[in-house]
Amino acid sequence: MEQKQICAKFEKAVELLSKRWVAFIIYQLMSGPQRFSDIEHGLPNLSGKVLSDRLKELEAEGLIRRDVYPEMPVRIEYSLTEKGRALSPLFTDIGNWANQWMSDGHE
Amino acid sequence: MEQKQICAKFEKAVELLSKRWVAFIIYQLMSGPQRFSDIEHGLPNLSGKVLSDRLKELEAEGLIRRDVYPEMPVRIEYSLTEKGRALSPLFTDIGNWANQWMSDGHE
Repeated sequence: MEQKQICAKFEKAVELLSKRWVAFIIYQLMSGPQRFSDIEHGLPNLSGKVLSDRLKELEAEGLIRRDVYPEMPVRIEYSLTEKGRALSPLFTDIGNWANQWMSDGHE
Repeated sequence: MEQKQICAKFEKAVELLSKRWVAFIIYQLMSGPQRFSDIEHGLPNLSGKVLSDRLKELEAEGLIRRDVYPEMPVRIEYSLTEKGRALSPLFTDIGNWANQWMSDGHE
């Protein structure tokens, strides 16, 4: 039985993207820069603490950037980097698959 | 800020695919039907108990099928259904993205 060797890069990518809430946060940011409260609003079941942790991780991984605008009050926005936006095809494919194969429980 | 409404199907798909080990198990089965021990061999850090649970869940979700061959000893094989194989583009996307953007820690 030919077995798929899982390369380190693929494994790291799957582990990162599978982390609870990561995919949803990236998906939210696909529609453009957002403030912390915007993201929170879009993901009501996600706690502020977990969101804060995930945003730090995603920033460290280079998938998102954090911009601070020295206004009164200070405005902080999160947005996808090129690396983050490059995940867009994945979300299109998940959406296509979900539409074709998943039931939303009302059928 | 236009917010992405996360539809129920998309949410269910992301939650299912993000579950620990699910993506790796499906990826293993992309190379064809395999026995429990084959899958275990391909994913050394995955315990037999968790693999057994995930296979049951994936079977219940219709992503894999379980075939029993009445040989001596009995042979049981797991394989992707059409619904499971339809996830193939996702793995291509993840592979492409990982190759371009992830470091495998040796660079």
